[in-house]
Amino acid sequence: MTSICIDAMGGDFGPKPIIEGVVEALETVKFSAVLAGKEEVLKPLVPSHLQKYISYIEATETISMSDGATNALKKKDSTIYKAIELLKNKEVKAVVSAGHSGATMSLATLRVGRIQNVLRPAIATLMPNVLGKKTLVMDVGANVDCKAEHLFQFAIMGEAYVKEILKIKNPKIGLLSNGEEESKGNEVTKEAFSLMSKLDCFVGNVEGNQIFDGSVDVVICDGFVGNILLKTSEGVADAITKIIKKHVKKSPIAIAGSLLMKKVFKTLKQQVDYDEYGGAPLLGVDGCVIISHGKSNAKAIKNAIFQALNFADSDINKVIKDELLSFAR
Amino acid sequence: MTSICIDAMGGDFGPKPIIEGVVEALETVKFSAVLAGKEEVLKPLVPSHLQKYISYIEATETISMSDGATNALKKKDSTIYKAIELLKNKEVKAVVSAGHSGATMSLATLRVGRIQNVLRPAIATLMPNVLGKKTLVMDVGANVDCKAEHLFQFAIMGEAYVKEILKIKNPKIGLLSNGEEESKGNEVTKEAFSLMSKLDCFVGNVEGNQIFDGSVDVVICDGFVGNILLKTSEGVADAITKIIKKHVKKSPIAIAGSLLMKKVFKTLKQQVDYDEYGGAPLLGVDGCVIISHGKSNAKAIKNAIFQALNFADSDINKVIKDELLSFAR
Repeated sequence: MTSICIDAMGGDFGPKPIIEGVVEALETVKFSAVLAGKEEVLKPLVPSHLQKYISYIEATETISMSDGATNALKKKDSTIYKAIELLKNKEVKAVVSAGHSGATMSLATLRVGRIQNVLRPAIATLMPNVLGKKTLVMDVGANVDCKAEHLFQFAIMGEAYVKEILKIKNPKIGLLSNGEEESKGNEVTKEAFSLMSKLDCFVGNVEGNQIFDGSVDVVICDGFVGNILLKTSEGVADAITKIIKKHVKKSPIAIAGSLLMKKVFKTLKQQVDYDEYGGAPLLGVDGCVIISHGKSNAKAIKNAIFQALNFADSDINKVIKDELLSFAR
Repeated sequence: MTSICIDAMGGDFGPKPIIEGVVEALETVKFSAVLAGKEEVLKPLVPSHLQKYISYIEATETISMSDGATNALKKKDSTIYKAIELLKNKEVKAVVSAGHSGATMSLATLRVGRIQNVLRPAIATLMPNVLGKKTLVMDVGANVDCKAEHLFQFAIMGEAYVKEILKIKNPKIGLLSNGEEESKGNEVTKEAFSLMSKLDCFVGNVEGNQIFDGSVDVVICDGFVGNILLKTSEGVADAITKIIKKHVKKSPIAIAGSLLMKKVFKTLKQQVDYDEYGGAPLLGVDGCVIISHGKSNAKAIKNAIFQALNFADSDINKVIKDELLSFAR
């Protein structure tokens, strides 16, 4: 049975939604769950028929949002630290954490280490597109100032992910820019463009809207732009919802209409819902780490665990290593 | 009467929507419209009762999207070149163009010149927010690689615009970053943060979603990020519309619902519609230049003209000049 360590106390809402997510995952597929946290708090939350799949790794601290990522190395009794140590010692095959993402990244990079030749691990996230599929966007927060070489490596890691995990045979990879033409871009992306041209799956520059139109499978950007585009997307979707709700409220006819459209809105919500993906893989680390949103609910944690299981059972890290080696020669 | 030159042939759809926009504007407010283009083509499109407000400046060429912005200086018989020359010679107070935006920017900067101390002119655009108001975002395309000093100047120009044109007395200005904390940002934005701290109206870093929640009046970023966030926003709105339409089609109940909600969707469309703003002011040039989308319809051109009239009758360029001088001392 694949063994996964779950940071059971790192999320914004404490252990409850995390344990619920673990339970929901265990109801679907059997795996060995190691919960990092206080056993006395966690154990009562697990139904007795599932206890046999669960073990505990005692960790009394959590890393809060006000902690710097660099403090993470010092807090050796934190849930994230303990979880990452298990991964480092190969006692588990994957870690899922909804805790401090910067700390998780630092610890994973420093304690577990990078895949050979990887300059910088990066966070990849899946965004919904109009085809009802997903577009992988990376980096979305880990690396704020990137060099062209970093973006090139992100492309290799993104390609491996969509091939190995999403089973897309011939993925299309685009470089996010301010226009499709080769001449477009800033200094770094122009240099990255020429590096990426070595990759068969590289289709050139893409614009922001192409994240959602299904024209490419992977979109590459630095973590600064990645974070901004994630937040911008959330902002637009949120604004549209609020404007619709505000105007519906003003008219009984529109209220009736919105009731008849309830199913459509529900489908839309499902299609764009973060909870459906549950977590963002940290790529480039020599192990499997899934970073979930601090506000994850049970469903998000369940899906993050499914992601971790897929990742842990795949060859993705070997593929990344081999691919980078082939370019290092 | 304020005199405005309109590039009558630069848009993607030829002169028809442009002239319709001019006509619609003239039906609302009287101004002197100088149309740059071929008089023999344009004149028949103008109703006879409005001819007295119209004059023509003969220009036989247009700059196409495949032309580089640098070619613009050579094409001296282009509509944009002729329009900008009129502005340079103070024969008109403003230029509106839906043509090649890079060419318009280059020509305006090189021929009309920059306001004293302005390092780089920038394109500002208005984005709708949930309060039913607008957030000014700049730069959105003119300057791909920016230094901190450029972003600082964009903040000064953006402040002047919302104060003078949108009549917001105490605007809030945010610096777009990958987190609200002062510690967040890339190398350039961190340096810009400290420069902007000199400005009373600077509220610190803002995230992508804050463009739409009404928490600030102006959002500052470089043109690379600005272009990506514009396209990303369009992409999200477009994807949501497409997903809703697709699912509505599948169910007669939902179709009925969408009919009852028709007015709400129309209001939403109006609220987020580009045509409502019509154009993006080019700030920092010693004159008034409004850049419209190549795909502008008549309504967008009409609103761009209204923007140009407001701008031309304001003190904004003097305010920018004085403010920059106060920091140059």
